[in-house]
Amino acid sequence: MPGPGRPVELREADEPALEPGAALLRVELSEVCGTDVALRDGRLAGVPYPIIPGHVSVGRLESIRGTMADVEGRPFREGDRVTFLDVHRTCNACWYCLVAKATTRCPKRKVYGITYGLADGLTGGWSEAIHLKPGTRLIGLDGADPDRLMAGGCSLPTAIHAVERGEVAIGDTVLVLGSGPVGLSAIAVARLRGAAAVLCVGAPAARLEAARAVGAAATCDIETHDEQARIAWVLERTSGRGADLCIEATGSPGAVVQAMRSTRDAGRVVIAGQYTDHGDTSFNPHADLNRRHLEVRGVWGSDFSHFYKAVALIADPERSRPWGRIPTERYALARAGQALDDVAARRVVKALIDPRVQA
Amino acid sequence: MPGPGRPVELREADEPALEPGAALLRVELSEVCGTDVALRDGRLAGVPYPIIPGHVSVGRLESIRGTMADVEGRPFREGDRVTFLDVHRTCNACWYCLVAKATTRCPKRKVYGITYGLADGLTGGWSEAIHLKPGTRLIGLDGADPDRLMAGGCSLPTAIHAVERGEVAIGDTVLVLGSGPVGLSAIAVARLRGAAAVLCVGAPAARLEAARAVGAAATCDIETHDEQARIAWVLERTSGRGADLCIEATGSPGAVVQAMRSTRDAGRVVIAGQYTDHGDTSFNPHADLNRRHLEVRGVWGSDFSHFYKAVALIADPERSRPWGRIPTERYALARAGQALDDVAARRVVKALIDPRVQA
Amino acid sequence: MPGPGRPVELREADEPALEPGAALLRVELSEVCGTDVALRDGRLAGVPYPIIPGHVSVGRLESIRGTMADVEGRPFREGDRVTFLDVHRTCNACWYCLVAKATTRCPKRKVYGITYGLADGLTGGWSEAIHLKPGTRLIGLDGADPDRLMAGGCSLPTAIHAVERGEVAIGDTVLVLGSGPVGLSAIAVARLRGAAAVLCVGAPAARLEAARAVGAAATCDIETHDEQARIAWVLERTSGRGADLCIEATGSPGAVVQAMRSTRDAGRVVIAGQYTDHGDTSFNPHADLNRRHLEVRGVWGSDFSHFYKAVALIADPERSRPWGRIPTERYALARAGQALDDVAARRVVKALIDPRVQA
Amino acid sequence: MPGPGRPVELREADEPALEPGAALLRVELSEVCGTDVALRDGRLAGVPYPIIPGHVSVGRLESIRGTMADVEGRPFREGDRVTFLDVHRTCNACWYCLVAKATTRCPKRKVYGITYGLADGLTGGWSEAIHLKPGTRLIGLDGADPDRLMAGGCSLPTAIHAVERGEVAIGDTVLVLGSGPVGLSAIAVARLRGAAAVLCVGAPAARLEAARAVGAAATCDIETHDEQARIAWVLERTSGRGADLCIEATGSPGAVVQAMRSTRDAGRVVIAGQYTDHGDTSFNPHADLNRRHLEVRGVWGSDFSHFYKAVALIADPERSRPWGRIPTERYALARAGQALDDVAARRVVKALIDPRVQA
Repeated sequence: MPGPGRPVELREADEPALEPGAALLRVELSEVCGTDVALRDGRLAGVPYPIIPGHVSVGRLESIRGTMADVEGRPFREGDRVTFLDVHRTCNACWYCLVAKATTRCPKRKVYGITYGLADGLTGGWSEAIHLKPGTRLIGLDGADPDRLMAGGCSLPTAIHAVERGEVAIGDTVLVLGSGPVGLSAIAVARLRGAAAVLCVGAPAARLEAARAVGAAATCDIETHDEQARIAWVLERTSGRGADLCIEATGSPGAVVQAMRSTRDAGRVVIAGQYTDHGDTSFNPHADLNRRHLEVRGVWGSDFSHFYKAVALIADPERSRPWGRIPTERYALARAGQALDDVAARRVVKALIDPRVQA
Repeated sequence: MPGPGRPVELREADEPALEPGAALLRVELSEVCGTDVALRDGRLAGVPYPIIPGHVSVGRLESIRGTMADVEGRPFREGDRVTFLDVHRTCNACWYCLVAKATTRCPKRKVYGITYGLADGLTGGWSEAIHLKPGTRLIGLDGADPDRLMAGGCSLPTAIHAVERGEVAIGDTVLVLGSGPVGLSAIAVARLRGAAAVLCVGAPAARLEAARAVGAAATCDIETHDEQARIAWVLERTSGRGADLCIEATGSPGAVVQAMRSTRDAGRVVIAGQYTDHGDTSFNPHADLNRRHLEVRGVWGSDFSHFYKAVALIADPERSRPWGRIPTERYALARAGQALDDVAARRVVKALIDPRVQA
Repeated sequence: MPGPGRPVELREADEPALEPGAALLRVELSEVCGTDVALRDGRLAGVPYPIIPGHVSVGRLESIRGTMADVEGRPFREGDRVTFLDVHRTCNACWYCLVAKATTRCPKRKVYGITYGLADGLTGGWSEAIHLKPGTRLIGLDGADPDRLMAGGCSLPTAIHAVERGEVAIGDTVLVLGSGPVGLSAIAVARLRGAAAVLCVGAPAARLEAARAVGAAATCDIETHDEQARIAWVLERTSGRGADLCIEATGSPGAVVQAMRSTRDAGRVVIAGQYTDHGDTSFNPHADLNRRHLEVRGVWGSDFSHFYKAVALIADPERSRPWGRIPTERYALARAGQALDDVAARRVVKALIDPRVQA
Repeated sequence: MPGPGRPVELREADEPALEPGAALLRVELSEVCGTDVALRDGRLAGVPYPIIPGHVSVGRLESIRGTMADVEGRPFREGDRVTFLDVHRTCNACWYCLVAKATTRCPKRKVYGITYGLADGLTGGWSEAIHLKPGTRLIGLDGADPDRLMAGGCSLPTAIHAVERGEVAIGDTVLVLGSGPVGLSAIAVARLRGAAAVLCVGAPAARLEAARAVGAAATCDIETHDEQARIAWVLERTSGRGADLCIEATGSPGAVVQAMRSTRDAGRVVIAGQYTDHGDTSFNPHADLNRRHLEVRGVWGSDFSHFYKAVALIADPERSRPWGRIPTERYALARAGQALDDVAARRVVKALIDPRVQA
């Protein structure tokens, strides 16, 4: 991506020279997510264009200079199939890292494919190879199916984070607003965490079908239900009270208010779908929040623990089945622009870049 | 109060006949709070007018029919000075009481002075006597100074609830928005819970002086600082990050958004000042909530535990000192209308009805 | 049960007279659990012998005097199939109920089949009928399979309580010590809550087979592994660290220490198997607890929320499958003594009393 | 300390050569704590003798090579008075650091004065100077009184950690077992966190006097009260129920069991006094833990957040007053052996090494 609002281009690059502790990853799959659309449209601040997008990727280690090890201290070997946390650097020295213990808010945080640009090297997944800098947190796939892992992509750790933050408990009715990748992963993870039933409000029909396939008990189409009808639909299925927990995963500001209104008194609302700025919305603090005794929790980014659990989950053939049911569409590198268009228009559920295929 | 929007009237009533387990309380002090103004103005739903306002009160037990006991099972005796939880009835049988364990949301909840009306008997504190129904949760004052207790009034258990829900920890910087009774008690309780510093944004000057007297490290006057200036004032005092916790206690919808903007990333916001409907407000879910990784928690009402801790706190002569510094104004029963006007106009900090004085 | 240490007897009783709000339940199934063995052996304090054992039961409402309703306020009708919380009474007025919010520790707590005796009427499930007193918390079965519900019995709400208290999270490895009814339900519930793997240490072989059938990834037989070998077995399966959470469900005092030694540093240990006194054990507070930075949490009894979630779980045909795999053995009323012997000797996995069958 | 069981020796060392990012600290005060006695007696595993003891120290930066900054990113200057976290290194790369988020259990953790030895350089506080390695977490004193800070020493962050882990709340009665440095700091911090009353069980009389001076409401002398009498003493002051929270800070294994027996049902027990191995103890899991529905939480070590809050607390002249009341005794470097003897014999409350004074 050469700059905000400009189409993606295919460029040639030299093989990078590896510093000690670095590696070269031969990319097998990389993802196209909503963030990539926001990057193209220039809706994210602080992006060092030109950049190579693609923050979650899977591939094989082609060469390692020195040693790179996993969290158990086991060194990786060339040829290993791995993925890596897109967040390369948190400083472990600032107030957010050490006192607040909120590493996702570390001001020195650097993310492959987003806040690393071409000037930093081959730092994104829409590429034949990625230069993994020293300190990059690699995870071996160890039998985790790369297709299922990438069908989740960055949405899966986000969903795990959202479900943890939502404290899903046995017996909860969980409402997921949104049926894009984050919504789909949230449905499946909420079920795995013991939710009695997961309801999903979203669109279009193909995504709602996927929602049911990954575990939603019922779905409501926003194209045929206005906000009042959606809330009524939820109340009918929750003894008139609303969901115990609502996970918002839409990208639409108004959905945040709809989430509050669809949740029972003293329930929880997790906001996971407002990663980029889509504008303002209006609500009534008395009726929507205070009188309901709600907890509303923002989820920004994920840390290594969420990503680690995501890979471990996919490594379980039985538990990862829902991710085998998410429809994916693969694009050659040269068709990355098309992939962005399809994601923006919601024509595909999950788009993946596969540098191994020819356009 | 004969009805919404109508002035309070003084009426004569017969001595009530006590059923077994009931008592007659000779009122010494009752409070006038923001809820009473909302009751007069008809801004609360489901109020069975005509009502006798006054939900938190102190007095002496004049007669007890049968037995009323405290939580230790010790029976009260006639002549004991007591207060009582304004919430008379939660059912201990519904989904909210038993499954969600959110008793403040029990649909059968009945509150003296608010949802009990004259048809239910002498059920409010702006009266020479209150008919305490069986099951009313009494607490003996046991040396707790009634003046300090009533200087807090219903604001004190609300503040304890807000501080518990805000999980104030050693070292936190707490921002309190609002310098009315809830704000003042929140300042004092946050200090008692170990906050390193409490900042207060409010008005008018007399209340800000009270804020400093009860423990605020610094105060900011909203009459001389617009929203931008207030947020800048907070950031200057918090290493540019914002407060660890913000407790909103204003009654102004916009303050909810200001609270989010004055809190550090991954911090907590407690909404305690939206007890009645003051209209809508607008915010940006991305910038104000999600990217900040905030937790926003509504606080609605209090339960017995908060009220019990409030009385225990006031019974400690050293710890209850801040409540001795809150300026109070006493009114005879006949001047209750004036008290409401003074509270509405913020001419007094805390107004009390004293049925023992003559107008 | 006529008294401690004496064999159970079959007695005839008159049909009870129902007070308003009471009902007569025609028993279909009642359970025999470890507590019943302890009751027979006189290992529980404060039991008002003679008693009718059987605290969790299922049956049909034969007659209702007045109204009994569920938590949604829906009245029950004669003929409805129901179960009920064995805890009949918590006072909702004492310090434990109202301040500590620990209703299982309410001193006025009364339990059918344990602290209610024959002097209180037909108050246990090993009977053709039970006299349900006013205020008994009934739950309609609404399609929940009574056989699966009773295969769990009181163990299922205990397991839900233990898993909630253990805060099982996506990705956790959970170790369950014990393969009796509580252990089996804990395995299944931990899996439902998202545990990546559940390990079970127990005996005999038939129970370990049941453990695997309900979801254990691997089992270790205590008859062939001494304490050192068991801990080594756990460490081998947990990267040498120990389980993230260990749920003790054995009844053996030494297992509490084994639980600590099988759990990773900064992990959690839930003690659910020490409901009755089996004597002392010895441990090293430095090595076993402090240096490991553990949390050890006792679980005593369950409250309505756990029981409610248990019934809701069984009402889900897919999720309740593991309870269809727990082997049960049915006994006529006249064979209750044999049932106790079989449970004490671990000859059966789950014993049920079925008053409908003849000996 | 040349080796386990051998007396401390005074040795001369060369001025160290500083690598980039390192500094030389001119020591003003260092502490002598129970760990140092354990180090001398060889009761800690993995100590690389010979070592220079002294893990918490205060001094002035004599020379800095390159840059060392605080958590706000502000660089330190030569001449600044600072303290530093004794834990120099946690890896931020292992399973404990990244997945469990339990950095105190990082296997690569290195501690000045304990697991760094003379072979690693001037790495302990009982020295005229300390070689601060790159990455050492320095905190500027910024007006914090060094005498008060060192009167707390390592006990103060430990106490903050214990009180956080104990979740002290407004209204709690807290029992502290032990009146040594950790006990005294725990008393003062529990009061700051809002405990209604703190009780202390300890000895000898001088330490109990200090306990009352820092905030204990009442003290019980173990020299005149046996275990039964101590528990009775606690129950008398807690409505017969026991403390809401008990913080064990004794070093005696039996105190762990006494802590459970002195705590109310459904209360919390924090174990902070078993840093080294003092042997086994015996308890009854049913009566002491399970039936009481307790939570028992081990506290091992502290992390930067606790230390940071400790310094911030001492920087508040009003809040740090209790630490001005802890009696300290200063020893020249040459009298370090005497200091150890006095600490071991409990002849002093808090012993400090002051390298500026002559023997």
